[in-house]
Amino acid sequence: MPAINPARLLGDLRALAEIGKYKTGVHRPTLSPDDLRARAFLVERLHAAGLEVEQDGIGNILGRSRVKGKVMLAGSHLESQNHAGWLDGALGVIYALEAARALSEDPATAHLGVDVASWCDEEGHFGHFLGSRSAIGLVTEEEIDKASDRTDGRPLRQALAAAGLAGKPRLKLDPARYAGYFEAHIEQGDTLDSSGLQIGVVTAIVGNWRYDISVKGEQNHAGTTRMAIRKDAAVGLIRLCNAIHDGLAAVAGPRTVWTFGKITLDPGSANIVPGGAELVFHFRDADPALLPVLEKTLHDLVAAADAAGPCRFSIREVSKSKPALMDEGFQAALDKAAERHAPGKHLRLPSGAGHDAQYLARVMPAAMLFVPSIGGISHHWRENTRDEDIVRGAQVFTSAIAGVLRS
Amino acid sequence: MPAINPARLLGDLRALAEIGKYKTGVHRPTLSPDDLRARAFLVERLHAAGLEVEQDGIGNILGRSRVKGKVMLAGSHLESQNHAGWLDGALGVIYALEAARALSEDPATAHLGVDVASWCDEEGHFGHFLGSRSAIGLVTEEEIDKASDRTDGRPLRQALAAAGLAGKPRLKLDPARYAGYFEAHIEQGDTLDSSGLQIGVVTAIVGNWRYDISVKGEQNHAGTTRMAIRKDAAVGLIRLCNAIHDGLAAVAGPRTVWTFGKITLDPGSANIVPGGAELVFHFRDADPALLPVLEKTLHDLVAAADAAGPCRFSIREVSKSKPALMDEGFQAALDKAAERHAPGKHLRLPSGAGHDAQYLARVMPAAMLFVPSIGGISHHWRENTRDEDIVRGAQVFTSAIAGVLRS
Repeated sequence: MPAINPARLLGDLRALAEIGKYKTGVHRPTLSPDDLRARAFLVERLHAAGLEVEQDGIGNILGRSRVKGKVMLAGSHLESQNHAGWLDGALGVIYALEAARALSEDPATAHLGVDVASWCDEEGHFGHFLGSRSAIGLVTEEEIDKASDRTDGRPLRQALAAAGLAGKPRLKLDPARYAGYFEAHIEQGDTLDSSGLQIGVVTAIVGNWRYDISVKGEQNHAGTTRMAIRKDAAVGLIRLCNAIHDGLAAVAGPRTVWTFGKITLDPGSANIVPGGAELVFHFRDADPALLPVLEKTLHDLVAAADAAGPCRFSIREVSKSKPALMDEGFQAALDKAAERHAPGKHLRLPSGAGHDAQYLARVMPAAMLFVPSIGGISHHWRENTRDEDIVRGAQVFTSAIAGVLRS
Repeated sequence: MPAINPARLLGDLRALAEIGKYKTGVHRPTLSPDDLRARAFLVERLHAAGLEVEQDGIGNILGRSRVKGKVMLAGSHLESQNHAGWLDGALGVIYALEAARALSEDPATAHLGVDVASWCDEEGHFGHFLGSRSAIGLVTEEEIDKASDRTDGRPLRQALAAAGLAGKPRLKLDPARYAGYFEAHIEQGDTLDSSGLQIGVVTAIVGNWRYDISVKGEQNHAGTTRMAIRKDAAVGLIRLCNAIHDGLAAVAGPRTVWTFGKITLDPGSANIVPGGAELVFHFRDADPALLPVLEKTLHDLVAAADAAGPCRFSIREVSKSKPALMDEGFQAALDKAAERHAPGKHLRLPSGAGHDAQYLARVMPAAMLFVPSIGGISHHWRENTRDEDIVRGAQVFTSAIAGVLRS
């Protein structure tokens, strides 16, 4: 079984963490100067690993193996959320690189190949999983034309030109080349950390169904308008949210989550009965059969509120992502490798967050491995994982890929 | 009984409505150029009515009667809310002027006097009932130093200097001069209009008790944080608001009102479990005994939510105004005049909105008369009252003042 090099692995991760360093994390937005420096670092490491490097027109980087036959695709992303953690994304890219290096260095596996991918903008500064979606043919030129940075408004075209990528062709993956796709990531939750576990084997990436809910009442003077005749949009929304929280709990699965992300009252003034209210809401689950049940519950509650009055309620679907099931054989390979390197300390679990693997899973078998996040902290510069967990995860990741490619 | 002059009354109101006209309303913020024009208009009319005019250092205008003996103080305010109605405030000032004129023109009442007041900034552009509070000694120089326009930030000192009022002494009312205070106002609610009534006799101006309520939870990733371990400030606030709405309803009086004016989730992002939530809340009632019961209910509910966890809840008192009881004898005088001019079409009711009369009532007997607001619309340029209701109200107002002064 190929052995990873812990010092090299941690050294590469630490070197990446210096690029765009922010407190103990990093600030490396997509196609920012620091992101470009991180990309240059990766390109150099891919060359050093003997891979053939391609940078495409949407900012993906692919280090291709030179071996014959089917290879494994593996990767994640280099950019970070604003002022966020050093491992979110970077860990998966360096795991893929280390797997490629470890396989090539072991005579028993030197004939097996790993293509190392860094997908552009998984963190959504300019769009929605732009790199991985582009690689499976889901991004149009028009979408790129329209995209701009959510923080500073810079057009994506301008950012790509500044990175020297304007006019370059976009990568289109050939599924026939690949045995499948492996991605590693920090858990971003506390399931592993709070249970003393070391490895998570992802069963599915949840579907995320988003809605905007509006309440239309009647704006009035908060002193002179009697309760009995008010059409108070705040009260309407409070009642509805309460019903949603109870109603979803009644039909939810053990890992269903839902979030009241944003509430806005109009006009939002101390002395005025709000005439309008808006709610940004979403729920997630990995079970394709449960998501429509949750949606029906939500629609029924909104309709019941509207029928009861006195306010009018409406709901608008914003987006619905499909749950992505991870390949059963790949999960078994990860279980087997985890049992060797972390006996009794691994768990199968769904991923509540989205990952590039959910798009790769549409065109090839896919798998994900999680390592513990200390305290479950995510999208914050305090995000961290213990060195021994990082090293162990890379070994399990590499062993599982070797196991699949050998079988 | 002195008769008012309907054409003169409506003419003055219409002339005022041309100053700062906005659609069918007015935009006349305190000490704005249009407010200064309105003040100049009033000063001219007070002189024409034979009154002795004083403009004080906080922007109050007082037209003093020249008769001997106790006189009635009457008035309201000239400035408007931003882009608001033509009658809110102006009606009460012109009613007072018309009462002064009508009494002086009738030989039977020419020995009775009315002082006409325009209180500065009842609408709170710079502060909180600055003019009437100043006139009863409740405004310090420090408060004036610190005050600035809530819309454009202009310091009050600068606005007063621009109006030529810098350094002028501030009016200090001598209660011994007055039989009491009368104020007329549009109802700003729909009680009269929806019942086909013509005159409201105010029993009390409600107390308005305001609070900021904070929820402290824990910010987390909305996909990866299981429901069971969340400390979701949005859910905490939704539950608490629901309990407040039910809890206050259980102890409220028939005219108690409460309003969830503003809700803020922190950070208020679709994909993040809110770590904090803020609520701007208030309730109002005219019953001095009920307000503490409502407050205790609120405090108990916040404490219960805090004890239940997992979020922490806190409540901060922002302000508490005392309910102001209107003088029983004055109410009887208004009832009697209303029964003469609007037989069977008058009602006693509390005022849910605040008015200068609540401060004048602290130093002398006070009364308020309401005329119907069409559709109950208030603080909006569509605010309106029928001409016949305006005329009838002025007659009732004048008759009641004459009745009190004669008694």
